[in-house]
Amino acid sequence: MQPILVTFAAVPDGPWRIADVKAVTGDGLARAPALAITEGCAIQDPPASSWVLRGITSNVRYTTRSELDALSAAQEGLGRPQATRAALIPIRKSPAWWALAQEERRAIMEEQSRHIKIGMEYLPAVARRLHHCRDLLEPFDFITWFEYAPDQANAFEELVGRLRETEEWRYVEREIDVRLVRRG
Amino acid sequence: MQPILVTFAAVPDGPWRIADVKAVTGDGLARAPALAITEGCAIQDPPASSWVLRGITSNVRYTTRSELDALSAAQEGLGRPQATRAALIPIRKSPAWWALAQEERRAIMEEQSRHIKIGMEYLPAVARRLHHCRDLLEPFDFITWFEYAPDQANAFEELVGRLRETEEWRYVEREIDVRLVRRG
Repeated sequence: MQPILVTFAAVPDGPWRIADVKAVTGDGLARAPALAITEGCAIQDPPASSWVLRGITSNVRYTTRSELDALSAAQEGLGRPQATRAALIPIRKSPAWWALAQEERRAIMEEQSRHIKIGMEYLPAVARRLHHCRDLLEPFDFITWFEYAPDQANAFEELVGRLRETEEWRYVEREIDVRLVRRG
Repeated sequence: MQPILVTFAAVPDGPWRIADVKAVTGDGLARAPALAITEGCAIQDPPASSWVLRGITSNVRYTTRSELDALSAAQEGLGRPQATRAALIPIRKSPAWWALAQEERRAIMEEQSRHIKIGMEYLPAVARRLHHCRDLLEPFDFITWFEYAPDQANAFEELVGRLRETEEWRYVEREIDVRLVRRG
């Protein structure tokens, strides 16, 4: 349960081929051939990286006990053999979001936007891991990493489409959508 | 409202003289003559530091809107001329704390332990700033910095004494209490 520092680096060659990089909101990121993912304290950036993003797996910030139990029962881990498609979605929220009190953010995120509830509808097909970056003084506040099988690609599009229509997403001021395919 | 990285370094000489270093729970920290505080990205540790602790001022994690408004109305900032006494209190909580859901931590901290409510009773005499460290992979989870006038020293002892008797403090597995006096 200790936080893990995870580094996502755009590299010339790596286990995940970058299929697409789309700037959803705000400035984009450069195209690159592949993504390298390192867990643990990276002493230095991988050589020849065109960009490097860092995040920390941390304690839950909004999730209630009943939601945690439901998620734990339904979700599957990363690294499933059939999950050869992935998405790396870094997001930055606005100063107005961060100035809200805790229960105001929770109310927008879940009671209004149903963020956790929507994500649950796509379990176990879409596995995910959330990384926090704001307190690392990174350019993004969160990086979410998703993994799914090719036949779940339409379901995944529906999931991100539904989230982007929520009240919560009105506080998103920068979002990039990087899609990846695992090398066979 | 952007997070600020704050570095607390034990140094041979500095604006705050270290009067006492007490290990309240778990391993202590070495005595040192003085403390230097740096805000912003510290490229490297100050020379001759015997220890360096880092934290980030971040968004609130538990505070409600009504509590935020009451705190804003009552509290005063750091750096008041009469506030020549300070305390630096780094704390680490147990894995059991961090495994709790959001509303379970909030219930222990406030509904059971009255952490925010107790702190409010000592406003504006005791000014404070909270720094988060867990996601920086530091040895502590939080560092709180307190400033008060010499004639508020007894009130401050009462404040920390009351907090240490709460249910929340049963999750504290390491705590150091460093007391400081501002050089004239």
